Amino acid sequence: MTAAPSAETILARCDALAAHTEEPGRLTRTFLTPVHAAAAAEVRRWMEAAGMTVRMDGMANLIGRYEGKEPDAPAVLIGSHLDTVRDAGRYDGMLGVLLGIDAVARLNAAGRRLPFAVEVVGFGDEEGVRFARTLLGSRALAGTLDAAALDAADTDGTTLAQALEAFGLAPDAWRAAALDPARVRAYLEVHIEQGPVLEHLSLPVGVVTAIAGATRLAFALGGEAGHAGTVPMEARRDALAGAAEAVLAVETVAQEHGVVATVGALEVAPGAVNVVPGRVRFTVDLRAAEDAARESALEDLRGRLQMIAARRGLTLAAETLHENAACPCSPSLTDLLAEAVEDQGLPAHRLMSGAGHDAMAMADLCDVAMLFVRCAGGVSHNPAESVTAEDVAVAADVLSDALVLLAERPPFHLQEPRP
Amino acid sequence: MTAAPSAETILARCDALAAHTEEPGRLTRTFLTPVHAAAAAEVRRWMEAAGMTVRMDGMANLIGRYEGKEPDAPAVLIGSHLDTVRDAGRYDGMLGVLLGIDAVARLNAAGRRLPFAVEVVGFGDEEGVRFARTLLGSRALAGTLDAAALDAADTDGTTLAQALEAFGLAPDAWRAAALDPARVRAYLEVHIEQGPVLEHLSLPVGVVTAIAGATRLAFALGGEAGHAGTVPMEARRDALAGAAEAVLAVETVAQEHGVVATVGALEVAPGAVNVVPGRVRFTVDLRAAEDAARESALEDLRGRLQMIAARRGLTLAAETLHENAACPCSPSLTDLLAEAVEDQGLPAHRLMSGAGHDAMAMADLCDVAMLFVRCAGGVSHNPAESVTAEDVAVAADVLSDALVLLAERPPFHLQEPRP
Repeated sequence: MTAAPSAETILARCDALAAHTEEPGRLTRTFLTPVHAAAAAEVRRWMEAAGMTVRMDGMANLIGRYEGKEPDAPAVLIGSHLDTVRDAGRYDGMLGVLLGIDAVARLNAAGRRLPFAVEVVGFGDEEGVRFARTLLGSRALAGTLDAAALDAADTDGTTLAQALEAFGLAPDAWRAAALDPARVRAYLEVHIEQGPVLEHLSLPVGVVTAIAGATRLAFALGGEAGHAGTVPMEARRDALAGAAEAVLAVETVAQEHGVVATVGALEVAPGAVNVVPGRVRFTVDLRAAEDAARESALEDLRGRLQMIAARRGLTLAAETLHENAACPCSPSLTDLLAEAVEDQGLPAHRLMSGAGHDAMAMADLCDVAMLFVRCAGGVSHNPAESVTAEDVAVAADVLSDALVLLAERPPFHLQEPRP
Repeated sequence: MTAAPSAETILARCDALAAHTEEPGRLTRTFLTPVHAAAAAEVRRWMEAAGMTVRMDGMANLIGRYEGKEPDAPAVLIGSHLDTVRDAGRYDGMLGVLLGIDAVARLNAAGRRLPFAVEVVGFGDEEGVRFARTLLGSRALAGTLDAAALDAADTDGTTLAQALEAFGLAPDAWRAAALDPARVRAYLEVHIEQGPVLEHLSLPVGVVTAIAGATRLAFALGGEAGHAGTVPMEARRDALAGAAEAVLAVETVAQEHGVVATVGALEVAPGAVNVVPGRVRFTVDLRAAEDAARESALEDLRGRLQMIAARRGLTLAAETLHENAACPCSPSLTDLLAEAVEDQGLPAHRLMSGAGHDAMAMADLCDVAMLFVRCAGGVSHNPAESVTAEDVAVAADVLSDALVLLAERPPFHLQEPRP
């Protein structure tokens, strides 16, 4: 079996899915909308053609099952999401679902059954665009969805509970979507990198070691506004000059602690050409594969900002907007993915995922591993999102090989289900 | 004659003028409005009470004349403006006009005539709020007003020409407002400092050496927007990190060149918490008493910004928004004001004016000098603007003394009119 035709089919299916959009001229497909249903119907047909039995669970996740050697065997899950951001690209999410279908199609074409079932999941919601809550699909599957999420409303005031019902799902069916951990062996996800690392290294794929933990903070520096012409330099308490030092401190701390940190938003008040800034608010987004590194970087940063503020006579206020722990991928599964990459004659580059993925939620259910596919310019969440057929072919071969390796290796094959 | 009652009268008159406002509850008095007319009528009565003959010129400047020993002698002008910014304080401008009236009132009370006439001017427009052009009054008097200004329109679409006519002034009368340089000996202006220097030095007044020249620029740094989690630090071209260095370079350049420089506005795009900034625009306001210092600081700054951009792989664009040369005060007049300050037993602190004043326009007509009065917290253009009666008393004594010194000194007294 050659890889090229398979990759072309996958890319053609990405194009076909991109036609299911709420907004003419650009791709936007949010949770529980008619275009979600239409896209799911098309994916269902592909799953069925690959020999899968397909169901939609109570959180509108589409799940195709390819039985193993024994009927009703525990499953290895391969998944990603079918929803998009607004004005999205056509690979973020969808590519991972279609690669899962492709891997099963290969088994089916070869008439091969593994010691486990394979289930391919197209999560209904990962991006969280409609209800401002992310990972609704994978959290439901993992059994970690907070019932309060059902009351979350979209901008029209429709709650998630109402939208599920309008989509044709029973009000409480989402509770039954939670999988029994004893019935799940592992979760694998292929996703575009959404960053430039693989492109810089000229590698088609990479193996994810962890999904970064993240802390988002808002800082406010308060000084004294004044006339830009009449307040001497030595009499100023310029909040923006202090913030400038803070921005550079964020950069330095990131470099010294081996994490990534970003000041993405910064607002100056009063913000007039001829007024010394009296107040600056800025955000810090700090991510790391290891929580200890993130925490020590954050502590270092806080200390530096306090020193900057003190030296300049500024007030400093900080607020934590968001915090989530890192999600390490399973070392044994990750090694196995790396082996599958090396089987293609490629170095298995390991990298952190700075963005969140369904695998984060699935890690509460089972061991997870992820494969990244190079994307042009590291661009995602943008119509310019792009992958090559060659890279998709490599990813398809790696995923397919990984299933075979999983089936062959006693350490994993014999592993007991998680308690 | 004691100073205190005089200062109290001046402050009471500032309060009375503050009642002439377009907006209930806050002081806003713009050019050629009914409240401008009402304020001018009140000032006219005070001028007449001080022994002056009062006229309104074709640009709605109110001018009170106190004759010298010889009728029709050339005049020393004392002035400032009667208009305000929106939600203004009650001293910026008005205080200088009322101190001029006070100085004449003292001469009149003593029956004293000087070798020159004294004319007190209440300029109709300095702030430029209504027609978005500043110094309309003093430019008309100095004969430097561009006729194109008459076509400038306010937000209702009323042009300056139409507003003058509605105010009762003949359409072309503004041309006759230009004074003959041969008829003017000097221009003196007292103004609140609008900065914190005198307060820091615990001095009631200071002598202005020059009105700063200013350059305002807009800079844009262009990098590459990217995902805050997925783009490694070493692969970033973060426009905000570059701008942070630029803000600190502005501060350093100002300190090293002895000028004042401010980044007052800074905007980040796209400006999201989780996106590496791709583009930052910021302004620089650079002022100096000497044009050479401003120009060399600017050259230094441009070089530093280019180096920052080059090192970080950022594009740099610069646009000059505004530029005006410094306006040096007359050294001999400034020395004379300093002498008058020292006559009060005070050190004559010399300082730059970072803000613009009518004296800038009047310098095209004659020698100018300025006296600054301490204001609380350096605050101006704000209802919190505040001066003390004690400081106003000192300023009144200095101004009064300066007129006497001018009259007594042959170097000035005998000076030929400017060609």
